[in-house]
Amino acid sequence: MAKITVAGMGPGGEKQMTGEVLQALEAADILVGYQTYLDLLSERWQEKPRLSTGMTREEERCRLCFREAAEGKQVVLLCSGDAGVYGMASLLLSLADEYQTEKEKIEIEILPGVTAATSGAALLGAPINHDFCCISLSDRLTPWDRIEKRLLLAAEADLVIVLYNPASKARADYLQRACDLLLTRLEKERACGLVKNIGRAGTEKKVCTLAELRDMPADMFTTVYIGNSQTRIRRGRLVTPRGYPVEEADKGERP
Amino acid sequence: MAKITVAGMGPGGEKQMTGEVLQALEAADILVGYQTYLDLLSERWQEKPRLSTGMTREEERCRLCFREAAEGKQVVLLCSGDAGVYGMASLLLSLADEYQTEKEKIEIEILPGVTAATSGAALLGAPINHDFCCISLSDRLTPWDRIEKRLLLAAEADLVIVLYNPASKARADYLQRACDLLLTRLEKERACGLVKNIGRAGTEKKVCTLAELRDMPADMFTTVYIGNSQTRIRRGRLVTPRGYPVEEADKGERP
Repeated sequence: MAKITVAGMGPGGEKQMTGEVLQALEAADILVGYQTYLDLLSERWQEKPRLSTGMTREEERCRLCFREAAEGKQVVLLCSGDAGVYGMASLLLSLADEYQTEKEKIEIEILPGVTAATSGAALLGAPINHDFCCISLSDRLTPWDRIEKRLLLAAEADLVIVLYNPASKARADYLQRACDLLLTRLEKERACGLVKNIGRAGTEKKVCTLAELRDMPADMFTTVYIGNSQTRIRRGRLVTPRGYPVEEADKGERP
Repeated sequence: MAKITVAGMGPGGEKQMTGEVLQALEAADILVGYQTYLDLLSERWQEKPRLSTGMTREEERCRLCFREAAEGKQVVLLCSGDAGVYGMASLLLSLADEYQTEKEKIEIEILPGVTAATSGAALLGAPINHDFCCISLSDRLTPWDRIEKRLLLAAEADLVIVLYNPASKARADYLQRACDLLLTRLEKERACGLVKNIGRAGTEKKVCTLAELRDMPADMFTTVYIGNSQTRIRRGRLVTPRGYPVEEADKGERP
């Protein structure tokens, strides 16, 4: 049976991929993905046939998968990080209805990977060791108002906040705008951090305050962490405790 | 130099571990972890010396690591899922100050893994494909009031909500309590799902409405998904679109 595997490759290097994703690459007749991610694959996969589409052409990329699978090929659609965290799993499943018929059935398999929230966290220490949320600052598919509302509610909930897509060429000041908004609710000294190019050439990391974060350079390959009220910088690492001080728990105090 | 590696093993099976975690296991002189997780390791690691402590004895577990590392051993502290998502990374780093001296320095390395939020999501379809949060229902270290406040704010923010530790023997009705609270804000038909024993023997998954979720059996090995306003059940799979309908984005309407 024809099969499409949507695979999360993790941050980049092969050693951060899971065994089942490597197995899927091995079995694949063709690899489909955004060129930047396909280029991260090591030599041993460079011989595999591959197809790619540009940045905003995700739907076309999914349709390529169905077209190839309809020819009986084993297709692997590669995503950076995890396949289902701002990845292609959802779009592919949404388009499946158009291609699944009584006669032809294409199996769709999703293989998870290490998402940037956790691979970046490991480099910084343990910034997301309690309840946390992931919010993308890209307003390409989500109204900016909704993103702002989420940021404020996440701050009020004292969730650790992980920002994906914090800035791009077209959205150069989005991280600044998000920080300015959060600074209306959170203290300037709130412990924060960011990591660039996780698991790839040119990895950079930085631990800083929220006020400092505002002016940090960021791009599409940067993941940003805003600590909760308990997060501290310890020996240069960002550490969020697993809970709240016992006294507070005993009192059952409202946050 | 003595070294402690805090490693996320993913949901359970070796094929969902990353290559660097397998390398760390290979290099380890001793493995430390909660017994249930050590037992998930395949035959090839069963020869390694190992130490474990019970469920609530995480601090003791970390101290064992420092004691073994002080003897010059390469120690791997195993966590299920990711090392920094309700894992041991934070506690180990918090205790490090007591053991790091001018004379003795212990290197601490954190290796990420595939966390339950994403491995369970892959089994259900693509439930967390937009902004989401992870909230633990365990009130052992966090006051229940704070957990309730988080749930309500997450619902207001229209975040997909992933629940860790939704219930245990001592907290049999916590998932019910959380659902009852969410039902005061969200519609009964909200698309939800849950997965039990991800990547292990006895994997079970279920897609349902929020009203049905309330009465689903859950335990410490269950991960629960509450969709956002756009999440739909498609061919038995839970799918959250990557964004919001274009009309809304065009209007810039407030959610």
